[in-house]
Amino acid sequence: MKIKIIMPITQGVFDSHELAIARRYASEGTEITCVHLRKGSESIENQYDEALSVPGLLEEVTKAEEEGYDGVLISCFGDPGLKPAREVASIPIVGPAETSMLFASSLGQRFSIVTVVKDIVPLLEDNARVLGVEKLASIRYVDIPVLALEHEEKLLNALYDESLKAVEHDGAHIIILGCTGMIDVAKSLSKLLAEGRGCNIPVIDPAMVALKFLEALISLGLKQSKLTYMSSH
Amino acid sequence: MKIKIIMPITQGVFDSHELAIARRYASEGTEITCVHLRKGSESIENQYDEALSVPGLLEEVTKAEEEGYDGVLISCFGDPGLKPAREVASIPIVGPAETSMLFASSLGQRFSIVTVVKDIVPLLEDNARVLGVEKLASIRYVDIPVLALEHEEKLLNALYDESLKAVEHDGAHIIILGCTGMIDVAKSLSKLLAEGRGCNIPVIDPAMVALKFLEALISLGLKQSKLTYMSSH
Amino acid sequence: MKIKIIMPITQGVFDSHELAIARRYASEGTEITCVHLRKGSESIENQYDEALSVPGLLEEVTKAEEEGYDGVLISCFGDPGLKPAREVASIPIVGPAETSMLFASSLGQRFSIVTVVKDIVPLLEDNARVLGVEKLASIRYVDIPVLALEHEEKLLNALYDESLKAVEHDGAHIIILGCTGMIDVAKSLSKLLAEGRGCNIPVIDPAMVALKFLEALISLGLKQSKLTYMSSH
Amino acid sequence: MKIKIIMPITQGVFDSHELAIARRYASEGTEITCVHLRKGSESIENQYDEALSVPGLLEEVTKAEEEGYDGVLISCFGDPGLKPAREVASIPIVGPAETSMLFASSLGQRFSIVTVVKDIVPLLEDNARVLGVEKLASIRYVDIPVLALEHEEKLLNALYDESLKAVEHDGAHIIILGCTGMIDVAKSLSKLLAEGRGCNIPVIDPAMVALKFLEALISLGLKQSKLTYMSSH
Amino acid sequence: MKIKIIMPITQGVFDSHELAIARRYASEGTEITCVHLRKGSESIENQYDEALSVPGLLEEVTKAEEEGYDGVLISCFGDPGLKPAREVASIPIVGPAETSMLFASSLGQRFSIVTVVKDIVPLLEDNARVLGVEKLASIRYVDIPVLALEHEEKLLNALYDESLKAVEHDGAHIIILGCTGMIDVAKSLSKLLAEGRGCNIPVIDPAMVALKFLEALISLGLKQSKLTYMSSH
Amino acid sequence: MKIKIIMPITQGVFDSHELAIARRYASEGTEITCVHLRKGSESIENQYDEALSVPGLLEEVTKAEEEGYDGVLISCFGDPGLKPAREVASIPIVGPAETSMLFASSLGQRFSIVTVVKDIVPLLEDNARVLGVEKLASIRYVDIPVLALEHEEKLLNALYDESLKAVEHDGAHIIILGCTGMIDVAKSLSKLLAEGRGCNIPVIDPAMVALKFLEALISLGLKQSKLTYMSSH
Repeated sequence: MKIKIIMPITQGVFDSHELAIARRYASEGTEITCVHLRKGSESIENQYDEALSVPGLLEEVTKAEEEGYDGVLISCFGDPGLKPAREVASIPIVGPAETSMLFASSLGQRFSIVTVVKDIVPLLEDNARVLGVEKLASIRYVDIPVLALEHEEKLLNALYDESLKAVEHDGAHIIILGCTGMIDVAKSLSKLLAEGRGCNIPVIDPAMVALKFLEALISLGLKQSKLTYMSSH
Repeated sequence: MKIKIIMPITQGVFDSHELAIARRYASEGTEITCVHLRKGSESIENQYDEALSVPGLLEEVTKAEEEGYDGVLISCFGDPGLKPAREVASIPIVGPAETSMLFASSLGQRFSIVTVVKDIVPLLEDNARVLGVEKLASIRYVDIPVLALEHEEKLLNALYDESLKAVEHDGAHIIILGCTGMIDVAKSLSKLLAEGRGCNIPVIDPAMVALKFLEALISLGLKQSKLTYMSSH
Repeated sequence: MKIKIIMPITQGVFDSHELAIARRYASEGTEITCVHLRKGSESIENQYDEALSVPGLLEEVTKAEEEGYDGVLISCFGDPGLKPAREVASIPIVGPAETSMLFASSLGQRFSIVTVVKDIVPLLEDNARVLGVEKLASIRYVDIPVLALEHEEKLLNALYDESLKAVEHDGAHIIILGCTGMIDVAKSLSKLLAEGRGCNIPVIDPAMVALKFLEALISLGLKQSKLTYMSSH
Repeated sequence: MKIKIIMPITQGVFDSHELAIARRYASEGTEITCVHLRKGSESIENQYDEALSVPGLLEEVTKAEEEGYDGVLISCFGDPGLKPAREVASIPIVGPAETSMLFASSLGQRFSIVTVVKDIVPLLEDNARVLGVEKLASIRYVDIPVLALEHEEKLLNALYDESLKAVEHDGAHIIILGCTGMIDVAKSLSKLLAEGRGCNIPVIDPAMVALKFLEALISLGLKQSKLTYMSSH
Repeated sequence: MKIKIIMPITQGVFDSHELAIARRYASEGTEITCVHLRKGSESIENQYDEALSVPGLLEEVTKAEEEGYDGVLISCFGDPGLKPAREVASIPIVGPAETSMLFASSLGQRFSIVTVVKDIVPLLEDNARVLGVEKLASIRYVDIPVLALEHEEKLLNALYDESLKAVEHDGAHIIILGCTGMIDVAKSLSKLLAEGRGCNIPVIDPAMVALKFLEALISLGLKQSKLTYMSSH
Repeated sequence: MKIKIIMPITQGVFDSHELAIARRYASEGTEITCVHLRKGSESIENQYDEALSVPGLLEEVTKAEEEGYDGVLISCFGDPGLKPAREVASIPIVGPAETSMLFASSLGQRFSIVTVVKDIVPLLEDNARVLGVEKLASIRYVDIPVLALEHEEKLLNALYDESLKAVEHDGAHIIILGCTGMIDVAKSLSKLLAEGRGCNIPVIDPAMVALKFLEALISLGLKQSKLTYMSSH
């Protein structure tokens, strides 16, 4: 199967890392391509950034279907354009936030999201309400902008602190990393929590669960319902 | 006070009628302007149309604030771009669907929305969930596209039929017209329901309640919270 | 239009101040009268006080309609008698708590109410549940009885303290003043929060938003649904 | 133990029948008295009737405590004055609607209420929301006013029809009789449903479950929490 | 009437104490027997223990009905096997957790449960969700295993500490003891809270409210609905 | 990776078919074994059947972990023993109903479940509540017992009828087959709905989505949280 990962931003700096990690988790036989947008926002940290990225994203989605891809992963935790993309496409489209919250709902009583900055929190809250999951304990943030996430040690320390607060104060039993830029740190964080505090809990990498979910949908022949996402042309 | 109504579509055919009705309901001393977009969709009947309209809308919102307007009404029942617009602006921004659902929540036990076509229903359902109102009984539609709404008699008959079903099958006690293109028919529909069936219930014209709500916010010095809608530049 | 404000208590000490402030916010052409009850409670600080005030209030509502008023504002944050009043009247009747919670639902993610004393909190919680709004973050109180609210500096300091706790601990993005006796302090509190903490959020004066809401309903020809509030005689 | 049943209406016609049935279900050692109000409404069929009955009811509650009663049952399905009564009293106070909905929540997946007339339905809906039970399937009515309930055959037929609709269309697994005037028909209705349709479901007589609940509270030394119902004098 | 209390564990050490307390609260004319299981778990402190106890419990329930008992109380706060037991039996079956949460819903705004150990908390949370009550404030635990509950002073001190936290931090107005092994301490705890902190709130003994509830059901001729609990043989 | 499918019944008739279909959908490199129980129920059609199967199931789960399996799929739509199994195991355990409801929550606005018989419906309703998903539209049944499911044409016709009712009356946009015995009919049903009615919607085969979900969890190194499912020995 052929999967396209669309980074819904105009920055290409994350593409090769994302692709490398995605290929590590992909099933045998899955081909993955990763592209970013020609027009839109540099990064998505609020609803304004998101709105500006959607038209460019929808063009890429349409193109992906024409090129014969079997499914699309929109690689941003705001799930930008997920719903209009499902209208324009007849192939399955998945988003990391939606998938993470559904996977987390299976793994225990309550999950917390640890995201980048405060400004994006209301958008994430709204997406959780629309999805209709009741196990969201809290949304916390490390206060590091997307484009500064590469300082891995600083990020990991901040994630550790906020994850512990989520567990101890908010009752979280699962942690979701709330930005697809926090790539390849889930296992390190999980280990740190287990070793530092005996806190043996799942840490979800949103882009990777979305990738595996998309593979599952494609191999089962499933995609979004056309009663919810009616064809828009 | 100065209010700008933005029609978030590239059609200008509705502007003068909307403006005339708005001036009829405006308070003394309110100046109203009505504009449509230079780029976007012709009409908004699904999430794809909506997504394409938002960037052009946000430009108009920014311009309205620069021109000294005291508030903006986004005149489409999908409330397109309402949330990013509230981020970019420091003046109050209101939407017809949100306002209608809040007004209706005060007037009785449950309300139904009667909108144009089936394709827009999921978007309206999602907006209701995000707003957090529990009194939505149902969303019905007359199956008439936006650009065919000018056949007033046909529209009124279809609204009458669907409103009665909303009352009798869904338990609605209030009707919200689910498209700002259904302008100036609320009173006729209300009269028809009262005379035809003794069904004495409020019928809400969404653009007009949004206008009065915006006037109220401006005169009270209230606007969107900057903890929810953080400045995006 | 002619509006009657009913203070549902047997004290007349608040009447002239309330009237003065109301006239400041009223639209041009709105005439306002303010009365208190002949029989009932001195102030309303629990459900017992409220219950004793309702019969006297209902008499005043009936009288207001006979006198040709276009609408009634029941000026107490407990919204006493709001529902039976809507049954006896065929003119619109509004309450400050209901209106404040609906306006606040539009302005951001979550609101807190800061009221007078602990005893009234359960009643306010119940009213929020009945209204069906999901954005209530918390109800706090300044621990100052209604009849001691005139010490403005003490009140303002206590409101400031509780509002900050609401924002920082409860996640509030909007503050609602939870007593109509806290009149004309919303703007001072808003300024204090913005200057002291850079906390730029709406503070809602409940009687004044109810006044503007009532004006809006009257000018739109809207009132409570007679399917919810059936005529009681 | 000594229990007072207060009929919160000015009619005394139901007193002796209610007392006779109550004595049949009471435990050995329970003494029961039944009184009606000196001032209030003739019957309670909407929120206006209810409001007018509460002050007189609260006097009777205070008197009951002074006379040494161990608990009070307010015998009306609107549960009028239940909350202020719990504030004025330091003995347990129970209401038939609240008790019925809690008992029904234990007996199966969903319950329906079949009450007298349409006008009382919104009040019952609000009471269910305040109680916080999620198993209410529907509220139906037989369209017979309280004071005409004595025609037992007509009542039973209408209850049978509405109960079947509740089961077949609304998914009810339990029926609650929604008026304390529907006394001593629960078993006949239950038998009719079982024999006519093999529909073997509980039918709850609201005054009688409230009586047994009150006996249980008294014998366990339990009553309303004084953190919810603070003393009002 | 004849009631059987089934201790769904293989330990018999609690039987005689439970029986003595139950007889103290039972109505005149109620005969009570108390048995434990021949096969199952020693105590129930997680979902695994619970699962292993259910088959043995169901045998005892079937036997109780054959022996002519009028009802069964499953005396464990996990309500193990409550639902399958209601399928196999045609006599009423009650559980302490379900009954306690329903009784508490009547007594005030919110209740907390104070149970034994952390491992059982998720099961109790799930049971509350299934019951559909909205007034659960929190679940706390004293961190004392069931078989060490006999140290009454240590237990009482721990219950006092956790109950105060439930009231002061979680907003609880009622405390439910979250283990039927915490027998005969409700009144001592209630007294301690009232004297130590002026905290005058109900403390619910779960097995005893279940006993009184069962007596009430039997005397009213009520039992679980056969539309929810269909006969399983 | 090595996966064990446990059929939680004492019948082995379904094993080979289930295994064949599972192997068709499995990723390359996945080894699958399928076993049934030595003690328990013949089929699971109510809560009693389920309770009797759980102890035998838990033995198989423990054995699977000892044998080196990487994960277990409990192949019954009642998800019997899912929660205690997650306590005893340190490998991921999945259930078809939970997984189906989460996958369906991603694919559209609302889903319906079409199961075998009426008796199992309350259990499925309870499982949905515990999972905390809000998009369940309805649960319908074909009225065919599990052991008669092999008549494929009769089954398909009944599924078609109930699915159409779910779409047209209950607002479903996705269908979940509510029994793992309805294996290998999802695609036929989907085709029938699309061709017969132009109803282009996803039909979910519960065992197969659970299989793909389990593969995804194993390849991501995720499993149930040990804060929810504490070790039970």
